[in-house]
Amino acid sequence: VSGAPVVRCAVRPGAYHDSVVLMQLQRSLAALPGIADAGVGMATPANREMLAESGLLPDTAAEAGEGDLLIAVRAASEEAAGEALGRVDALLQVRRGGGGGGAGFRPRSLEGAVKALPGARWVLVSVPGRYAAGVAERALDLGRHVFLYSDNVALTEEAALKRKASERGLLVMGPDCGTANVGGTGLGFANRVRRGSIGIVAASGTGLQMVASRIHELGGGISHAIGTGGRDLAADIGGITARQALDLLGRDPETETIVLLSKPPSPAVAASVLAAARAVEKPVVVNFLGLAPPVRRLGNIRFAVSLEEAAEMAVGEPHPLPLSHRPPAGRERGATSQLLPPSPGGREGDGRGGQGGEALRGLFSGGTLAAEARLALQAFLPADRHAILDLGDDEFTVGRLHPMIDQDLRLRRLRAEAADRSVAVILLDVVLGDGAHADPAGELAPVIETALAGRIGDLEILALVVGTDEDPQGLDEQIATLERAGARVCRTVGALVEGVWDRLAPIAETLPPVHLSALEPPAVINVGLESFYDSLASRGVPAVQMEWKPPAGGNERLAGILARMRNR
Amino acid sequence: VSGAPVVRCAVRPGAYHDSVVLMQLQRSLAALPGIADAGVGMATPANREMLAESGLLPDTAAEAGEGDLLIAVRAASEEAAGEALGRVDALLQVRRGGGGGGAGFRPRSLEGAVKALPGARWVLVSVPGRYAAGVAERALDLGRHVFLYSDNVALTEEAALKRKASERGLLVMGPDCGTANVGGTGLGFANRVRRGSIGIVAASGTGLQMVASRIHELGGGISHAIGTGGRDLAADIGGITARQALDLLGRDPETETIVLLSKPPSPAVAASVLAAARAVEKPVVVNFLGLAPPVRRLGNIRFAVSLEEAAEMAVGEPHPLPLSHRPPAGRERGATSQLLPPSPGGREGDGRGGQGGEALRGLFSGGTLAAEARLALQAFLPADRHAILDLGDDEFTVGRLHPMIDQDLRLRRLRAEAADRSVAVILLDVVLGDGAHADPAGELAPVIETALAGRIGDLEILALVVGTDEDPQGLDEQIATLERAGARVCRTVGALVEGVWDRLAPIAETLPPVHLSALEPPAVINVGLESFYDSLASRGVPAVQMEWKPPAGGNERLAGILARMRNR
Repeated sequence: VSGAPVVRCAVRPGAYHDSVVLMQLQRSLAALPGIADAGVGMATPANREMLAESGLLPDTAAEAGEGDLLIAVRAASEEAAGEALGRVDALLQVRRGGGGGGAGFRPRSLEGAVKALPGARWVLVSVPGRYAAGVAERALDLGRHVFLYSDNVALTEEAALKRKASERGLLVMGPDCGTANVGGTGLGFANRVRRGSIGIVAASGTGLQMVASRIHELGGGISHAIGTGGRDLAADIGGITARQALDLLGRDPETETIVLLSKPPSPAVAASVLAAARAVEKPVVVNFLGLAPPVRRLGNIRFAVSLEEAAEMAVGEPHPLPLSHRPPAGRERGATSQLLPPSPGGREGDGRGGQGGEALRGLFSGGTLAAEARLALQAFLPADRHAILDLGDDEFTVGRLHPMIDQDLRLRRLRAEAADRSVAVILLDVVLGDGAHADPAGELAPVIETALAGRIGDLEILALVVGTDEDPQGLDEQIATLERAGARVCRTVGALVEGVWDRLAPIAETLPPVHLSALEPPAVINVGLESFYDSLASRGVPAVQMEWKPPAGGNERLAGILARMRNR
Repeated sequence: VSGAPVVRCAVRPGAYHDSVVLMQLQRSLAALPGIADAGVGMATPANREMLAESGLLPDTAAEAGEGDLLIAVRAASEEAAGEALGRVDALLQVRRGGGGGGAGFRPRSLEGAVKALPGARWVLVSVPGRYAAGVAERALDLGRHVFLYSDNVALTEEAALKRKASERGLLVMGPDCGTANVGGTGLGFANRVRRGSIGIVAASGTGLQMVASRIHELGGGISHAIGTGGRDLAADIGGITARQALDLLGRDPETETIVLLSKPPSPAVAASVLAAARAVEKPVVVNFLGLAPPVRRLGNIRFAVSLEEAAEMAVGEPHPLPLSHRPPAGRERGATSQLLPPSPGGREGDGRGGQGGEALRGLFSGGTLAAEARLALQAFLPADRHAILDLGDDEFTVGRLHPMIDQDLRLRRLRAEAADRSVAVILLDVVLGDGAHADPAGELAPVIETALAGRIGDLEILALVVGTDEDPQGLDEQIATLERAGARVCRTVGALVEGVWDRLAPIAETLPPVHLSALEPPAVINVGLESFYDSLASRGVPAVQMEWKPPAGGNERLAGILARMRNR
């Protein structure tokens, strides 16, 4: 007996749960029998709007205030709705009862927490951005280092926090610091890696994860990995955390080599941070993302051109960069995979771009991975052919979790892009490790499979997998799942770019060949500077100097008249 | 009996000589006894203006027309002036009598030249830019390849010439092509290099010279080096010459490896040129100046980050890039050599730049060398600290020869910059080879010596010497001359940058050290996402979850009121 669907809600006045807990509650509700959809959130105007858009805002929600938790379901019947809403407390309780979320004593203040765990040198802060600086500052006042995961912290707050921290010999990793590894323990999103002698200082979360994973894969190990937050090397911050970290790792007996990763800083900050690196009496490998290295070596500093090269340099991989004679691959492609070669005199961006299955879309969860792929591809793909999205960017995360935890938006985009016949290649990153989604490949696979089934031979999906064989998701299983679904798995941005090139590169436009005789020792007719003739003649090169004078003795007016007369 | 100086001139109606010949005449006249200064040029409005500025335009010059050669001297006496002007024809004749400039038969047309030297496959064109395309087109019509040295050729003319050439299987190197090496013979400015298996395709003259010289120095050799002109990879040209040259060298049995040099092209052209490189079944080393390589390898293509690395890759130098533990050098410098470290919250470009002997000036004759140095230095020197001039650029060569031939402007700038006490480092390039100045170091040395003598310990002059031990100037002698004068000689842009860093790098600003206990396995207080606590706890990390709720239950208005109440 199924009637019309009903939308019902419950309100928990003054209840607060973090966004991960709310996401889990929402998913549990949506999975209950008779429930079509569920929405959970604090009853702020923004959340009300989102619920209304999803058809999940019944009139009874009007009673909820901004500080109240709103839980709504669309159900097949009143009974199913009532049943689901009746289980909310139990669902929240199950979580906590399962040992999660600090089932035991939960101090209500930092002072209380310090008393409960006096050995805690670190405070991990992931409260909403507008409250984060306050919590971090109290932690510093209590003499604790801060791992500041929260984003949306003002630059002025960051500067003040870091000044305070540096005066007290404390570290502030972040804000918006996604990952770190302290003494072998991962914080935030972190890959499980072998312990070793390489320390990392990174203003880039996925950059740090990529380099750490790659070092692990190459047989090296990590002593410590210190995140600085993406803005640490901006002029307003001056690289405070990076400089502290370089000095600290410089004194750390476990660390023998240091890797420094950042977007290109301003020259003054670069000078200051490089001076700090130079003051360290250990090799420092620097990768300023997308910046052509100013030099390859500066004393103890080596510049790498990419994340993977930074990892290789740190591990001490030799770089013979052997020149390959391998004939070009993938030349036997159909006409549709041919970029129009630029005609001489032709223009770029003339609108011929997107048509004919030549477009590329990137749906990334890692900002640095997206940036590296974008930088690499824009060197040879016209701008109207590619769009690389960083789904972890603020514009996509309003009201939702980071795509490394919650792939809903990405799955939807993936379906939409695959249905667009102008799209020939889709790039994804799959970042493993603690803190990340428990089975990202398992969630992506059916969507990939369906997408490819609808576009056989016409669409390619490349997945960049970042992780180690010790990560809880299981590296091999994740790769196998993606490959079974039909994705091409890459382990480095370089491999990803090679994959794109194989699919999208133009076939060389053939020009009439120049005869090899052009390369024979030349005989030369010289028209102009006599010194060139002298030089050729003195070296025994057969040459003749032509007598040349400007037409009409250089008198342009007269030359013009003569030219017009000739043309009659 | 010396009276007041006199200015006198001679006019040769309809006479035409190229700019090198005129420069030599001018110098010969100025060196005659009793002559203070001399000026020589066609009597165009621009040249009249320059002569007038030098006080070398007597009233009698009014009779000369634009197509007439004007020769003026400022002399101690009428006698000296008359004597000098009376020798003009003899001086021009001496040159030609000395076997220079095609002393023998000089055909007056290209057709005549081809008859005189039927085996001439190449026409070298260096007439003034506005006439150059016409001469080049006639050469193509006669089935000849063109080396187009002239600059100031319109882009539309270049496109038309190259289209015509490519249809006929002919090459147009240039316009503004300074150097090439065809079958072992240098054209234009060219270093003498060992013959070998490496072919070069370059849209950069000094880039080509640097790479060829470096390959020679590393023990490798050059099969052929093809200049394309600096704009060949621009969108309007589409890399026609570069693609022809890649294909040609691809078929050349002597060439085993190819180096491709260019400024970063637009993506469409890059795709097209890289496709041509990929179609070659030989290793191709690509350096797009200043572009961080998109990847290190793409099939048979390797990307180099600098000219020197391109040379090393081509020769097959291994790149172990050994990590050095060498302690930082040059730390014992005085306070004046300390860049102000950026204060947190401080701004760049706040005007503190130029003071205190911290500025850097580059006086380059090679455009690509200037560009590479500029790119490398701007990564860590604030913009107000450095100015790298390319004295071969149009803005400096109006009415004068290229600085690789004529160093007058550079010598004057060198004196002026050395007299400026805010300038701490001056960079010069010294490019050897056929076509270049016969003794650049000999001309620079006294000026360098004087400059350094006036600023002992306070000024450093770094000279980048590009050349080979086979070059006519004598590489070792040129280096020795510069070093005797007090200059520090570098052989690569990388070494130049290291030299600058040693002199101008900031001393690391010391922050209070962070205690090493920060790196011990952490115990963590978690404030925020419970999933982080779960993750830590599951890995056995001592952790405590703090109970946190937004102040006033997330109600921002109420939180604001509470905060204001607390502050009372």
